[in-house]
Amino acid sequence: MSPDDLQTIPARSGRAQRLEAGQSITVINTHGTQVLDTWAFAAGDLGEYLSMEHTRSVNSRWLVGPGMVFVSTKRRPMLTLVEDRSPGVHDMLLPACSPEIYRELGCADGHASCQNNLHTALAAVGLAVPITPAPLNLFMNVPITADGALDRVPPTARPGDAVVLRAEMPLWIVFSACPQDVTPINGALRQPVEAHYRLG
Amino acid sequence: MSPDDLQTIPARSGRAQRLEAGQSITVINTHGTQVLDTWAFAAGDLGEYLSMEHTRSVNSRWLVGPGMVFVSTKRRPMLTLVEDRSPGVHDMLLPACSPEIYRELGCADGHASCQNNLHTALAAVGLAVPITPAPLNLFMNVPITADGALDRVPPTARPGDAVVLRAEMPLWIVFSACPQDVTPINGALRQPVEAHYRLG
Repeated sequence: MSPDDLQTIPARSGRAQRLEAGQSITVINTHGTQVLDTWAFAAGDLGEYLSMEHTRSVNSRWLVGPGMVFVSTKRRPMLTLVEDRSPGVHDMLLPACSPEIYRELGCADGHASCQNNLHTALAAVGLAVPITPAPLNLFMNVPITADGALDRVPPTARPGDAVVLRAEMPLWIVFSACPQDVTPINGALRQPVEAHYRLG
Repeated sequence: MSPDDLQTIPARSGRAQRLEAGQSITVINTHGTQVLDTWAFAAGDLGEYLSMEHTRSVNSRWLVGPGMVFVSTKRRPMLTLVEDRSPGVHDMLLPACSPEIYRELGCADGHASCQNNLHTALAAVGLAVPITPAPLNLFMNVPITADGALDRVPPTARPGDAVVLRAEMPLWIVFSACPQDVTPINGALRQPVEAHYRLG
Protein backbone atom coordinates (compact mmCIF):
# COMPACT_ATOMS: atom_id res chain seq x y z
CA MET A 1 0.00 0.00 0.00
CA SER A 2 1.20 3.54 -0.71
CA PRO A 3 1.67 5.64 2.44
CA ASP A 4 -1.14 7.97 1.39
CA ASP A 5 -3.73 5.26 0.85
CA LEU A 6 -6.69 5.63 3.14
CA GLN A 7 -7.47 2.30 4.77
CA THR A 8 -10.89 1.38 6.11
CA ILE A 9 -11.70 -0.14 9.46
CA PRO A 10 -15.19 -1.35 8.57
CA ALA A 11 -18.02 -0.79 11.04
CA ARG A 12 -18.15 -3.52 13.73
CA SER A 13 -14.88 -5.02 12.42
CA GLY A 14 -11.16 -5.24 13.12
CA ARG A 15 -7.96 -4.59 11.11
CA ALA A 16 -4.37 -5.57 11.86
CA GLN A 17 -1.56 -3.43 10.41
CA ARG A 18 2.19 -4.07 10.57
CA LEU A 19 4.31 -1.03 11.51
CA GLU A 20 8.08 -0.70 11.52
CA ALA A 21 9.99 1.18 14.22
CA GLY A 22 9.65 4.92 13.58
CA GLN A 23 6.65 4.53 11.29
CA SER A 24 3.58 6.64 12.06
CA ILE A 25 -0.08 5.92 11.57
CA THR A 26 -2.87 8.49 11.44
CA VAL A 27 -6.11 7.12 12.90
CA ILE A 28 -9.18 9.02 11.77
CA ASN A 29 -12.55 9.18 13.51
CA THR A 30 -14.26 9.75 10.17
CA HIS A 31 -17.73 10.30 11.59
CA GLY A 32 -16.64 11.61 15.00
CA THR A 33 -18.71 9.11 16.97
CA GLN A 34 -16.71 5.92 16.74
CA VAL A 35 -14.60 4.29 19.46
CA LEU A 36 -11.58 2.30 18.28
CA ASP A 37 -10.27 -0.39 20.61
CA THR A 38 -6.54 -0.56 19.95
CA TRP A 39 -3.90 -3.18 20.74
CA ALA A 40 -0.24 -3.64 19.81
CA PHE A 41 1.94 -6.75 19.80
CA ALA A 42 5.72 -6.86 19.35
CA ALA A 43 6.42 -8.27 15.89
CA GLY A 44 9.24 -10.44 17.23
CA ASP A 45 7.28 -11.86 20.18
CA LEU A 46 3.51 -11.62 20.37
CA GLY A 47 3.82 -12.47 24.08
CA GLU A 48 5.03 -8.88 24.57
CA TYR A 49 2.09 -6.55 24.10
CA LEU A 50 0.73 -3.11 24.88
CA SER A 51 -0.07 -2.89 28.61
CA MET A 52 -2.50 -0.36 29.99
CA GLU A 53 -1.37 -1.00 33.58
CA HIS A 54 2.34 -0.55 32.79
CA THR A 55 1.49 2.52 30.69
CA ARG A 56 -0.32 4.04 33.69
CA SER A 57 2.70 3.19 35.85
CA VAL A 58 5.42 4.53 33.54
CA ASN A 59 3.53 7.78 32.98
CA SER A 60 2.12 8.08 36.53
CA ARG A 61 -1.16 8.84 34.79
CA TRP A 62 -4.55 7.13 34.57
CA LEU A 63 -5.65 9.45 31.74
CA VAL A 64 -4.14 9.65 28.27
CA GLY A 65 -2.11 12.84 27.92
CA PRO A 66 -0.33 14.73 25.11
CA GLY A 67 2.83 13.01 23.89
CA MET A 68 2.12 9.97 26.03
CA VAL A 69 4.29 6.92 25.52
CA PHE A 70 2.44 3.59 25.64
CA VAL A 71 4.59 0.71 26.83
CA SER A 72 4.61 -3.05 26.66
CA THR A 73 4.30 -5.69 29.35
CA LYS A 74 8.13 -5.44 29.47
CA ARG A 75 7.89 -1.64 29.80
CA ARG A 76 9.46 -1.00 26.39
CA PRO A 77 7.99 1.92 24.43
CA MET A 78 5.61 0.64 21.75
CA LEU A 79 3.60 3.69 20.64
CA THR A 80 3.91 7.44 21.13
CA LEU A 81 0.94 9.76 20.76
CA VAL A 82 2.80 12.29 18.62
CA GLU A 83 -0.27 14.33 17.70
CA ASP A 84 -3.86 14.47 18.92
CA ARG A 85 -6.21 16.36 16.64
CA SER A 86 -9.21 15.54 18.81
CA PRO A 87 -10.42 16.83 22.19
CA GLY A 88 -8.02 14.29 23.72
CA VAL A 89 -10.60 12.09 25.39
CA HIS A 90 -9.54 8.42 25.33
CA ASP A 91 -9.90 5.54 27.77
CA MET A 92 -7.44 3.21 29.49
CA LEU A 93 -9.81 1.72 32.09
CA LEU A 94 -12.37 -0.51 30.37
CA PRO A 95 -11.99 -3.87 28.64
CA ALA A 96 -12.79 -4.85 25.08
CA CYS A 97 -16.45 -5.72 24.70
CA SER A 98 -16.88 -9.48 24.51
CA PRO A 99 -19.57 -12.10 23.84
CA GLU A 100 -20.17 -12.27 27.61
CA ILE A 101 -20.92 -8.52 27.76
CA TYR A 102 -23.51 -8.75 24.99
CA ARG A 103 -25.08 -11.72 26.75
CA GLU A 104 -25.37 -9.58 29.93
CA LEU A 105 -26.97 -6.82 27.84
CA GLY A 106 -29.60 -9.24 26.52
CA CYS A 107 -28.36 -9.38 22.92
CA ALA A 108 -28.81 -12.45 20.76
CA ASP A 109 -25.80 -14.75 20.38
CA GLY A 110 -23.48 -13.77 17.57
CA HIS A 111 -23.31 -10.04 18.31
CA ALA A 112 -19.95 -8.73 17.03
CA SER A 113 -17.45 -7.80 19.76
CA CYS A 114 -14.09 -6.06 19.95
CA GLN A 115 -12.67 -9.21 21.54
CA ASN A 116 -13.65 -11.37 18.58
CA ASN A 117 -12.60 -8.62 16.16
CA LEU A 118 -9.09 -8.66 17.65
CA HIS A 119 -8.67 -12.38 17.12
CA THR A 120 -10.29 -12.36 13.66
CA ALA A 121 -8.07 -9.46 12.52
CA LEU A 122 -4.95 -11.26 13.75
CA ALA A 123 -6.05 -14.50 12.09
CA ALA A 124 -6.41 -12.60 8.79
CA VAL A 125 -2.66 -11.94 8.88
CA GLY A 126 -1.83 -15.44 10.08
CA LEU A 127 -1.37 -14.60 13.77
CA ALA A 128 -2.96 -15.73 17.03
CA VAL A 129 -2.70 -14.78 20.69
CA PRO A 130 -4.23 -16.72 23.59
CA ILE A 131 -5.56 -13.71 25.52
CA THR A 132 -7.34 -10.40 24.99
CA PRO A 133 -5.20 -7.67 26.58
CA ALA A 134 -6.85 -4.57 28.01
CA PRO A 135 -7.10 -2.20 25.02
CA LEU A 136 -6.34 1.47 24.54
CA ASN A 137 -9.81 2.74 23.71
CA LEU A 138 -9.25 5.65 21.32
CA PHE A 139 -11.95 8.35 21.41
CA MET A 140 -13.82 6.50 24.19
CA ASN A 141 -15.37 8.78 26.80
CA VAL A 142 -15.39 7.27 30.30
CA PRO A 143 -15.84 10.04 32.87
CA ILE A 144 -15.13 9.14 36.48
CA THR A 145 -16.06 10.59 39.85
CA ALA A 146 -13.80 11.02 42.88
CA ASP A 147 -15.93 8.57 44.89
CA GLY A 148 -15.09 5.73 42.54
CA ALA A 149 -17.78 5.59 39.84
CA LEU A 150 -17.25 5.51 36.08
CA ASP A 151 -19.70 6.08 33.24
CA ARG A 152 -19.93 5.46 29.48
CA VAL A 153 -20.96 8.47 27.39
CA PRO A 154 -20.68 9.48 23.71
CA PRO A 155 -17.29 10.48 22.26
CA THR A 156 -16.42 14.18 22.21
CA ALA A 157 -14.60 13.74 18.89
CA ARG A 158 -15.76 15.63 15.80
CA PRO A 159 -15.93 14.15 12.28
CA GLY A 160 -12.40 13.90 10.88
CA ASP A 161 -10.65 14.17 14.25
CA ALA A 162 -7.50 12.10 14.30
CA VAL A 163 -4.59 10.89 16.40
CA VAL A 164 -1.10 10.17 15.10
CA LEU A 165 0.72 7.27 16.74
CA ARG A 166 4.39 6.47 16.12
CA ALA A 167 5.57 2.89 16.46
CA GLU A 168 8.67 2.67 18.65
CA MET A 169 9.45 -0.94 17.70
CA PRO A 170 8.38 -3.30 14.90
CA LEU A 171 4.86 -4.25 15.83
CA TRP A 172 1.38 -5.25 14.79
CA ILE A 173 -1.26 -2.69 15.67
CA VAL A 174 -4.87 -3.87 15.71
CA PHE A 175 -7.98 -1.69 15.65
CA SER A 176 -11.57 -2.69 16.27
CA ALA A 177 -14.37 -0.32 15.29
CA CYS A 178 -16.39 -1.03 18.43
CA PRO A 179 -19.74 -2.72 17.64
CA GLN A 180 -21.36 -1.57 20.89
CA ASP A 181 -24.92 -0.49 19.99
CA VAL A 182 -26.66 -0.85 23.37
CA THR A 183 -24.82 1.80 25.42
CA PRO A 184 -24.17 5.26 23.89
CA ILE A 185 -20.39 4.74 23.86
CA ASN A 186 -20.34 5.10 20.04
CA GLY A 187 -22.63 8.13 20.04
CA ALA A 188 -26.18 8.85 21.09
CA LEU A 189 -27.54 7.19 17.92
CA ARG A 190 -25.97 3.88 19.05
CA GLN A 191 -24.91 3.27 15.46
CA PRO A 192 -21.42 1.79 15.02
CA VAL A 193 -19.73 3.17 11.89
CA GLU A 194 -16.50 2.77 9.97
CA ALA A 195 -13.26 4.63 10.66
CA HIS A 196 -10.05 5.02 8.66
CA TYR A 197 -6.29 5.17 8.96
CA ARG A 198 -3.35 6.01 6.79
CA LEU A 199 0.34 5.34 7.21
CA GLY A 200 2.43 8.42 7.90
CA MET B 1 -4.46 -27.09 57.41
CA SER B 2 -7.11 -26.32 60.02
CA PRO B 3 -9.32 -23.35 59.12
CA ASP B 4 -8.00 -21.39 62.09
CA ASP B 5 -4.34 -21.79 61.23
CA LEU B 6 -2.64 -18.51 60.58
CA GLN B 7 -0.65 -18.72 57.36
CA THR B 8 2.33 -16.50 56.64
CA ILE B 9 3.00 -14.60 53.43
CA PRO B 10 6.70 -14.01 54.06
CA ALA B 11 8.16 -10.56 53.37
CA ARG B 12 9.06 -10.08 49.66
CA SER B 13 7.48 -13.46 48.79
CA GLY B 14 4.39 -15.06 47.30
CA ARG B 15 1.90 -17.75 48.40
CA ALA B 16 -0.71 -19.65 46.38
CA GLN B 17 -3.80 -20.99 48.17
CA ARG B 18 -6.56 -23.17 46.77
CA LEU B 19 -10.11 -22.08 47.66
CA GLU B 20 -13.38 -23.89 47.00
CA ALA B 21 -16.57 -22.07 45.95
CA GLY B 22 -18.10 -20.41 48.99
CA GLN B 23 -14.90 -20.57 51.02
CA SER B 24 -13.68 -17.34 52.64
CA ILE B 25 -10.18 -16.11 53.33
CA THR B 26 -9.21 -13.40 55.80
CA VAL B 27 -6.20 -11.43 54.64
CA ILE B 28 -4.40 -9.60 57.41
CA ASN B 29 -2.13 -6.57 57.08
CA THR B 30 -0.26 -7.64 60.20
CA HIS B 31 1.97 -4.58 60.41
CA GLY B 32 -0.40 -2.17 58.64
CA THR B 33 2.14 -1.06 56.05
CA GLN B 34 2.22 -3.92 53.60
CA VAL B 35 0.73 -4.04 50.11
CA LEU B 36 -0.43 -7.45 48.88
CA ASP B 37 -0.63 -7.94 45.13
CA THR B 38 -3.44 -10.44 44.61
CA TRP B 39 -4.42 -12.66 41.67
CA ALA B 40 -6.95 -15.43 41.15
CA PHE B 41 -7.11 -18.21 38.55
CA ALA B 42 -10.04 -20.55 37.91
CA ALA B 43 -9.07 -23.98 39.22
CA GLY B 44 -10.55 -25.68 36.16
CA ASP B 45 -8.90 -23.41 33.58
CA LEU B 46 -5.97 -21.18 34.50
CA GLY B 47 -6.66 -19.27 31.25
CA GLU B 48 -9.64 -17.71 33.05
CA TYR B 49 -8.34 -15.29 35.64
CA LEU B 50 -9.21 -12.25 37.72
CA SER B 51 -9.54 -9.21 35.45
CA MET B 52 -9.20 -5.68 36.78
CA GLU B 53 -10.64 -4.19 33.55
CA HIS B 54 -13.71 -6.43 33.54
CA THR B 55 -14.14 -5.81 37.28
CA ARG B 56 -14.15 -2.05 36.63
CA SER B 57 -16.68 -2.61 33.85
CA VAL B 58 -19.08 -4.91 35.74
CA ASN B 59 -19.11 -2.61 38.77
CA SER B 60 -18.93 0.68 36.81
CA ARG B 61 -16.24 1.62 39.31
CA TRP B 62 -12.51 2.37 39.10
CA LEU B 63 -12.16 2.23 42.91
CA VAL B 64 -12.71 -0.79 45.11
CA GLY B 65 -15.96 -0.43 47.05
CA PRO B 66 -17.76 -2.29 49.88
CA GLY B 67 -19.16 -5.66 48.81
CA MET B 68 -17.47 -5.42 45.44
CA VAL B 69 -17.53 -8.49 43.22
CA PHE B 70 -14.32 -9.16 41.34
CA VAL B 71 -14.84 -10.98 38.04
CA SER B 72 -12.83 -13.05 35.62
CA THR B 73 -11.82 -12.45 32.02
CA LYS B 74 -15.11 -14.24 31.21
CA ARG B 75 -16.99 -11.93 33.61
CA ARG B 76 -17.82 -14.72 36.06
CA PRO B 77 -17.70 -13.75 39.75
CA MET B 78 -14.45 -14.97 41.32
CA LEU B 79 -14.15 -13.09 44.61
CA THR B 80 -16.48 -10.97 46.75
CA LEU B 81 -15.17 -8.45 49.27
CA VAL B 82 -17.52 -9.57 52.03
CA GLU B 83 -15.86 -7.52 54.75
CA ASP B 84 -13.28 -4.74 54.84
CA ARG B 85 -11.82 -4.08 58.28
CA SER B 86 -9.43 -1.46 56.89
CA PRO B 87 -9.92 2.14 55.69
CA GLY B 88 -10.91 0.58 52.34
CA VAL B 89 -8.03 1.93 50.28
CA HIS B 90 -6.95 -0.57 47.61
CA ASP B 91 -5.71 -0.22 44.03
CA MET B 92 -6.92 -1.57 40.69
CA LEU B 93 -4.79 0.65 38.40
CA LEU B 94 -1.13 -0.32 38.71
CA PRO B 95 0.72 -3.45 37.55
CA ALA B 96 2.72 -5.93 39.58
CA CYS B 97 6.27 -4.72 40.11
CA SER B 98 8.64 -6.56 37.80
CA PRO B 99 12.37 -6.96 37.13
CA GLU B 100 12.08 -4.19 34.52
CA ILE B 101 10.69 -1.76 37.12
CA TYR B 102 13.58 -2.39 39.50
CA ARG B 103 16.00 -1.91 36.62
CA GLU B 104 14.36 1.49 35.92
CA LEU B 105 14.72 2.34 39.62
CA GLY B 106 18.45 1.59 39.54
CA CYS B 107 18.34 -1.57 41.66
CA ALA B 108 20.84 -4.39 41.21
CA ASP B 109 19.68 -7.41 39.21
CA GLY B 110 17.91 -10.02 41.29
CA HIS B 111 15.63 -7.68 43.28
CA ALA B 112 12.51 -9.61 44.27
CA SER B 113 9.33 -8.60 42.39
CA CYS B 114 5.62 -9.33 42.65
CA GLN B 115 5.74 -10.63 39.09
CA ASN B 116 8.37 -13.24 39.93
CA ASN B 117 6.63 -14.00 43.24
CA LEU B 118 3.42 -14.85 41.34
CA HIS B 119 5.15 -17.35 39.10
CA THR B 120 7.27 -18.83 41.91
CA ALA B 121 4.21 -19.26 44.15
CA LEU B 122 2.31 -21.01 41.35
CA ALA B 123 5.30 -23.24 40.59
CA ALA B 124 5.37 -24.27 44.26
CA VAL B 125 1.93 -25.85 43.77
CA GLY B 126 2.81 -27.29 40.36
CA LEU B 127 1.12 -24.61 38.25
CA ALA B 128 2.26 -22.16 35.58
CA VAL B 129 0.69 -19.32 33.59
CA PRO B 130 2.29 -17.58 30.60
CA ILE B 131 1.36 -14.02 31.59
CA THR B 132 1.19 -11.73 34.61
CA PRO B 133 -2.36 -10.37 34.86
CA ALA B 134 -2.97 -6.92 36.33
CA PRO B 135 -3.30 -7.56 40.07
CA LEU B 136 -5.74 -6.39 42.71
CA ASN B 137 -3.38 -4.47 44.96
CA LEU B 138 -4.81 -4.87 48.47
CA PHE B 139 -4.03 -1.99 50.87
CA MET B 140 -2.19 -0.09 48.10
CA ASN B 141 -2.71 3.66 48.16
CA VAL B 142 -2.73 5.25 44.71
CA PRO B 143 -4.40 8.66 44.88
CA ILE B 144 -5.35 10.25 41.58
CA THR B 145 -6.13 13.77 40.43
CA ALA B 146 -8.90 14.87 38.07
CA ASP B 147 -6.35 16.06 35.50
CA GLY B 148 -5.02 12.53 35.04
CA ALA B 149 -2.10 12.06 37.46
CA LEU B 150 -1.62 9.22 39.91
CA ASP B 151 0.75 8.87 42.85
CA ARG B 152 2.14 6.14 45.12
CA VAL B 153 1.90 6.82 48.85
CA PRO B 154 1.99 4.71 52.05
CA PRO B 155 -0.98 2.49 52.94
CA THR B 156 -3.61 3.92 55.29
CA ALA B 157 -4.11 0.49 56.90
CA ARG B 158 -3.41 -0.01 60.60
CA PRO B 159 -1.69 -3.06 62.10
CA GLY B 160 -4.12 -5.98 62.09
CA ASP B 161 -6.47 -4.49 59.50
CA ALA B 162 -7.97 -7.19 57.32
CA VAL B 163 -10.21 -7.92 54.36
CA VAL B 164 -12.39 -10.99 53.98
CA LEU B 165 -12.75 -12.35 50.45
CA ARG B 166 -15.18 -15.12 49.49
CA ALA B 167 -14.36 -17.36 46.55
CA GLU B 168 -17.30 -17.63 44.14
CA MET B 169 -15.80 -20.56 42.20
CA PRO B 170 -13.06 -23.11 42.81
CA LEU B 171 -9.87 -21.11 42.33
CA TRP B 172 -6.27 -20.51 43.20
CA ILE B 173 -5.64 -17.20 44.93
CA VAL B 174 -2.09 -15.90 44.94
CA PHE B 175 -0.66 -13.17 47.18
CA SER B 176 2.65 -11.38 46.91
CA ALA B 177 3.92 -9.35 49.86
CA CYS B 178 5.21 -6.54 47.65
CA PRO B 179 9.02 -6.20 47.85
CA GLN B 180 9.00 -2.55 46.73
CA ASP B 181 11.57 -0.74 48.91
CA VAL B 182 12.38 2.27 46.72
CA THR B 183 9.01 4.06 46.63
CA PRO B 184 7.01 4.49 49.91
CA ILE B 185 4.19 2.22 48.67
CA ASN B 186 4.87 -0.20 51.58
CA GLY B 187 5.17 2.57 54.17
CA ALA B 188 7.46 5.51 54.74
CA LEU B 189 10.16 3.22 56.15
CA ARG B 190 10.35 1.45 52.77
CA GLN B 191 10.65 -1.85 54.61
CA PRO B 192 8.66 -4.77 53.12
CA VAL B 193 7.29 -7.04 55.83
CA GLU B 194 5.29 -10.24 56.18
CA ALA B 195 1.51 -10.50 56.18
CA HIS B 196 -0.86 -13.33 57.09
CA TYR B 197 -4.09 -15.02 56.09
CA ARG B 198 -6.42 -17.58 57.50
CA LEU B 199 -9.21 -19.60 55.90
CA GLY B 200 -12.68 -18.62 57.00
